[in-house]
Amino acid sequence: MGTTDRSPDGPRDAADPADGPAPADAADVGLLSPVRAGTAAAAATGDAAWLQAMLDAEAALARAQARLGIVPDDAARAITGAARADRFDLAGLARRARGAGNPVVPLVADLRGLAGAAGEHVHRGATSQDIVDTGAMLVAARTRRAALAPLDRALDALAGLAAEHRDTPMAGRTLGRQAMPTTFGAKAAGWLVGLLDARAALAAVALPVQLGGAAGTLDAYGDRALDLVAAYAAETGLAQPALPWHTRRTPVAALGSALALVAGALGRIASDVVVLAQSEVDEVAEPAAPGRGGSSAMPHKRNPALAAMIRSAALQVPAYAQVLLAAQAAPYERPAGEWHAEWQPLRECLRLTGGAAETAAELLDGLEVRPARMRAHLDDLLGVLPEGVGVGAAPELVDRALAAYARARA
Amino acid sequence: MGTTDRSPDGPRDAADPADGPAPADAADVGLLSPVRAGTAAAAATGDAAWLQAMLDAEAALARAQARLGIVPDDAARAITGAARADRFDLAGLARRARGAGNPVVPLVADLRGLAGAAGEHVHRGATSQDIVDTGAMLVAARTRRAALAPLDRALDALAGLAAEHRDTPMAGRTLGRQAMPTTFGAKAAGWLVGLLDARAALAAVALPVQLGGAAGTLDAYGDRALDLVAAYAAETGLAQPALPWHTRRTPVAALGSALALVAGALGRIASDVVVLAQSEVDEVAEPAAPGRGGSSAMPHKRNPALAAMIRSAALQVPAYAQVLLAAQAAPYERPAGEWHAEWQPLRECLRLTGGAAETAAELLDGLEVRPARMRAHLDDLLGVLPEGVGVGAAPELVDRALAAYARARA
Amino acid sequence: MGTTDRSPDGPRDAADPADGPAPADAADVGLLSPVRAGTAAAAATGDAAWLQAMLDAEAALARAQARLGIVPDDAARAITGAARADRFDLAGLARRARGAGNPVVPLVADLRGLAGAAGEHVHRGATSQDIVDTGAMLVAARTRRAALAPLDRALDALAGLAAEHRDTPMAGRTLGRQAMPTTFGAKAAGWLVGLLDARAALAAVALPVQLGGAAGTLDAYGDRALDLVAAYAAETGLAQPALPWHTRRTPVAALGSALALVAGALGRIASDVVVLAQSEVDEVAEPAAPGRGGSSAMPHKRNPALAAMIRSAALQVPAYAQVLLAAQAAPYERPAGEWHAEWQPLRECLRLTGGAAETAAELLDGLEVRPARMRAHLDDLLGVLPEGVGVGAAPELVDRALAAYARARA
Amino acid sequence: MGTTDRSPDGPRDAADPADGPAPADAADVGLLSPVRAGTAAAAATGDAAWLQAMLDAEAALARAQARLGIVPDDAARAITGAARADRFDLAGLARRARGAGNPVVPLVADLRGLAGAAGEHVHRGATSQDIVDTGAMLVAARTRRAALAPLDRALDALAGLAAEHRDTPMAGRTLGRQAMPTTFGAKAAGWLVGLLDARAALAAVALPVQLGGAAGTLDAYGDRALDLVAAYAAETGLAQPALPWHTRRTPVAALGSALALVAGALGRIASDVVVLAQSEVDEVAEPAAPGRGGSSAMPHKRNPALAAMIRSAALQVPAYAQVLLAAQAAPYERPAGEWHAEWQPLRECLRLTGGAAETAAELLDGLEVRPARMRAHLDDLLGVLPEGVGVGAAPELVDRALAAYARARA
Repeated sequence: MGTTDRSPDGPRDAADPADGPAPADAADVGLLSPVRAGTAAAAATGDAAWLQAMLDAEAALARAQARLGIVPDDAARAITGAARADRFDLAGLARRARGAGNPVVPLVADLRGLAGAAGEHVHRGATSQDIVDTGAMLVAARTRRAALAPLDRALDALAGLAAEHRDTPMAGRTLGRQAMPTTFGAKAAGWLVGLLDARAALAAVALPVQLGGAAGTLDAYGDRALDLVAAYAAETGLAQPALPWHTRRTPVAALGSALALVAGALGRIASDVVVLAQSEVDEVAEPAAPGRGGSSAMPHKRNPALAAMIRSAALQVPAYAQVLLAAQAAPYERPAGEWHAEWQPLRECLRLTGGAAETAAELLDGLEVRPARMRAHLDDLLGVLPEGVGVGAAPELVDRALAAYARARA
Repeated sequence: MGTTDRSPDGPRDAADPADGPAPADAADVGLLSPVRAGTAAAAATGDAAWLQAMLDAEAALARAQARLGIVPDDAARAITGAARADRFDLAGLARRARGAGNPVVPLVADLRGLAGAAGEHVHRGATSQDIVDTGAMLVAARTRRAALAPLDRALDALAGLAAEHRDTPMAGRTLGRQAMPTTFGAKAAGWLVGLLDARAALAAVALPVQLGGAAGTLDAYGDRALDLVAAYAAETGLAQPALPWHTRRTPVAALGSALALVAGALGRIASDVVVLAQSEVDEVAEPAAPGRGGSSAMPHKRNPALAAMIRSAALQVPAYAQVLLAAQAAPYERPAGEWHAEWQPLRECLRLTGGAAETAAELLDGLEVRPARMRAHLDDLLGVLPEGVGVGAAPELVDRALAAYARARA
Repeated sequence: MGTTDRSPDGPRDAADPADGPAPADAADVGLLSPVRAGTAAAAATGDAAWLQAMLDAEAALARAQARLGIVPDDAARAITGAARADRFDLAGLARRARGAGNPVVPLVADLRGLAGAAGEHVHRGATSQDIVDTGAMLVAARTRRAALAPLDRALDALAGLAAEHRDTPMAGRTLGRQAMPTTFGAKAAGWLVGLLDARAALAAVALPVQLGGAAGTLDAYGDRALDLVAAYAAETGLAQPALPWHTRRTPVAALGSALALVAGALGRIASDVVVLAQSEVDEVAEPAAPGRGGSSAMPHKRNPALAAMIRSAALQVPAYAQVLLAAQAAPYERPAGEWHAEWQPLRECLRLTGGAAETAAELLDGLEVRPARMRAHLDDLLGVLPEGVGVGAAPELVDRALAAYARARA
Repeated sequence: MGTTDRSPDGPRDAADPADGPAPADAADVGLLSPVRAGTAAAAATGDAAWLQAMLDAEAALARAQARLGIVPDDAARAITGAARADRFDLAGLARRARGAGNPVVPLVADLRGLAGAAGEHVHRGATSQDIVDTGAMLVAARTRRAALAPLDRALDALAGLAAEHRDTPMAGRTLGRQAMPTTFGAKAAGWLVGLLDARAALAAVALPVQLGGAAGTLDAYGDRALDLVAAYAAETGLAQPALPWHTRRTPVAALGSALALVAGALGRIASDVVVLAQSEVDEVAEPAAPGRGGSSAMPHKRNPALAAMIRSAALQVPAYAQVLLAAQAAPYERPAGEWHAEWQPLRECLRLTGGAAETAAELLDGLEVRPARMRAHLDDLLGVLPEGVGVGAAPELVDRALAAYARARA
């Protein structure tokens, strides 16, 4: 690319950009992802949460085997007691994961050490993938709960906006140009139905437990295998799969798609907020708060920062979901890379969407709507339209949206 | 990049690659997409099919208005009669679409011309997006039907393979290495359940009619608007939407995701076929046929060409689905680009997945399975495993898969 | 998703959307891609052009072998004479390509038939991939030329805009809000430098000839192999590669990336045009022309249709480029799917970017700039800024951009 | 999806997957990314490193202004002294970044506090984007250096393999089937040239400093603006841009593309290693090491774990690069989302590629090559080939690759 960006003038006074202080550690805490920093979804998807979920999977497996009398009750209790993330060296596990390409081998070694005499009952008959996949589904279940709560707040706020502005006329705009009259209620109704659909898709995704053993055949469990899967599902609270899904990645791919639908529905709202909040339009404004929407260079500005953060998620999640969709096409009883490629994109889908949901709830709860500005722009539009064009959208559309929402909540 | 690839030696004897004969026309007939060339999905998604679907949308709209007495019956009949793709200049429409950025403006002009006196009733109260989106859903419905038929053939073949090889032992392989025993039946059962899930996801996608008018408010239809939408849905056979979805793109995004799930489920089967068909493994072979799997350089070879084509689709569809997922986050009552970016990727999702389904049916119908080769490799594996490792997978897994299939077919 | 989109009321009056007239054929002529319909890039990338390029590759290979005395001159002439796309059945080739998974096997058979006695010299020592890849590079070279011409027109227009509006003040906007003063010249200068960089990246991509034979070893050519590659490069006008690149896909992946850089640089201009052309901003307008920017529902509207089309390309090309980038990670001397997955995305990268370039030249050549509107909005901004804020951007920035452009053209 | 994955049996004994222990914190240390856990690239891209780079940008800006006499030398020294990441509350910054949508507003506040009397000179005339973008380029420069070192180790190893096995014959395989003879040297030569090209592309990417101020006009710096940019470039060691690139995202997009080329070149090597290391092929093996390639369920296995990790990166990076390519098409002097969407994908491109490079160096340094196995498979192939087919590839190809490598190193 170097046609127009020049190298520094020369060695005399040039620093070397590579000469920086050594960083303290390699952890991420969300500095580059404000959309999810400090949110419940972020807490539910950090490495500690993921580790805890994998430990929960090991403990649930031991308890499930205890239910069937394969493992002593005492051992299951001891394993459950030992399976606490705060007793593990997270960074060390991450590094040791390089040995086998996944973190379960060192995790099992450490858990056995912590479980004392019960150690021999840890991970019986299981394979790494059973624990990684079940852990991922547990994280997904927890993050989904963390995301559905703000989604429901956002839906409530949208229903309120649609009802309040059922008859608030404004200019509809296509390709950025004023087109024909609509209402802000109709716009909010469209947001509402879109988010409602996406929420339903997310809530409907089955999150199954994974248990298959080395080759996915459950062979180590003999004729108790299917009973064990049922008990394992019950212990984890996850769904019971038709078959081990070590190579049938629909659960992960469908989850990623559903999250991308939610991120998209939120992103569409945010995109509309950005254009309606432009200086020259100014028909809505983000909720004011100390420190909100500030600029480091322009104290007079009030930026649609919440909408920008939501959009940052909506622009990323589809790409991460795609990695999950593409990873389906993999060979063997466990592929050499496609499975490993799922973990980080799945996490990002979960936490960006969850963070965007929380951010959207904050945005919509306090959205300022300015009917007078809307009316003024509408009058401009009416000036160029033929006589007799009515003002406002069919209010029945808003009513239908509210009715759909009421049904969904019932 | 130019470090290792050199420019030609000089002007003396160098041709200019840009000096080629002028191509006859710019049409695609599938030369670069063998996975769908000549398939039913390809026929259902060509430009002629898309044009016909948009014309069907216009005709259905006229008939729906006739049902309500808004348009004379005669006019609706005349419009329906005129709405035949073969009466339109497809290439000319494509070029003229550049004026408005979509093909409906010239299509309406031409349809009015063909409809004679009924011309004034063409496209009443509608906007371009109503026709493009409804047309897309009609194409989707038709291509889905074209894809479900071979998917069902593939499912039947998979169920047959699972049942026949319920007890055919083979080596399970993880990361390419022999791991533990499994059965070919268990493998086919996993393929079956994965494809069954994906098929169900595709079949469940709602394909709604689109009608909203200029700003999505149905304003031109007054208090008959909702009746008209119902009649329009009935005339097209598409679902009735809760609201106009001009800016709520869940129907398109969810369709793309479901197609990517199907492509992925097919791609996983194909990936397994490729590795099992390798010379050194040779446990399965693609069906033999004249001209199948040939090589232009190596007459002795029999390539897994069907599997390679299926994989070519599975590697593309997620990227196209992602464009659809990302296009959700768009502003205005109609965005300036995101909507326009959907059309071609949606088509590719449809026809690549449909083509892959047809190709997979062909592959699975005639798949050669070689139990003796499987047994020989399994014996190698058993030689390194501890004594007492059993041979074969829990046949109950196969039974569960077959039961799930039987339920789904019921 | 079916929570809110309902199925049709029932069988009584419901049509079946799958009952459509049978489409005439499966060809695409650009109906769904107005951004490239009818452009030079579209003509350069259709199936006929691709077929011709593969035939050119076969003919060049014969002539290169004739240069070395391996093939009689007469035979090379006969092959060259026979290698005309209009003598081939394109749709038939596409269908027959399903046999081997690529179109070269039937192409060679037909070319041998047409070449008469010279037929035995067709495709000597080559493999399908040699022809597909060399053909793709020829198409790329031709389409690049077709794209660089309008890119240069666009660059000229941008330089003109930057110079003309070097001192035209306007409000700079961040996150959609008026921020600080800038000039339209500074904005155009940013567009100019961005497009200049992207153009340089595209022009710099090496487009090498491919020749390797069955396993990429050039074994069939003995000790004349490297001479033959040089002669083949000279005959095609393509670059000479360091090695056969049948499995080293940098040429394709780098080409896709460079095209995505161009599409992005054009997309950024178009995105700015859309927001500046909004009704409430109205600081620029697309060039007026009969039929341009019309709406099927709103005769009063003038849409930024060119910008919307350009954005439709910029939103798609990165996804297609990604398929090319991801396809690099493939095994074997020829992979079973990743190679096949490149063809269609590469074509779309080429023709969408080329079409966007042509569309951008049209947009920028006639862009209406409205300094009075800019000034009015700027005055609004100055009203809220502290006293003493200067108006306009450092004109030296514009000068630097123009100087960079002048250097690049020199 | 719920067709085959069932919900748990009922409330009696079902746990709720959402009832997990609260995670300690939301940090990532690499648990889900073994390919980069503990690598130099991971250390160079963590939040602490990113924060330090942004602080380095602030300090360099102060020193550059001191060079020009705009800021007192003492103040620049004080700011530089205060700009140490370990004095900042990283998690708190991340949360406070939600106020403005980026971390610079709170960072500047805290840095001013730490700088005492010099605080008023912090961030003079700059905007948040100047610091985020310059920080990103510093991180990129540092991570690139961290990645080039193992890339060079990998290249050395590849050159060694190519030279050592210049004449080691093996079967070439296409679509997984034995095709024609080649040599392991030819294969390694292809790997070498591919990685060499990608390395050159990465090394050539210009990493410019960013300085533009609120609207990208450098207005706050008056007629010293261009001098200041030069001094800023010198202080950071980054390149001097032709213009501020706040909206011209070529530097980020081109960097992402180049990283994807490297990841792809590494991924192709890893893909070949996986297939060559399969049990039935067994022609190469990953270097043996304690704990390497182990399985939690199968002690007898030796997995290609390094190759699988490398592939996991190669399957992700193109998707992240795509986000960067797509983010180019954004409006305004700073967009509301596209810019914010770049940060995390850029980081992943950097650290996954850097981690893959380190992993590849480890893989290639110790790769076990088994000529006898290669010969045995080749003999199988020769048995089905016509008489007279030679064994081995043109060794000149290896020589050309080694010569290209020697030139590149010179």
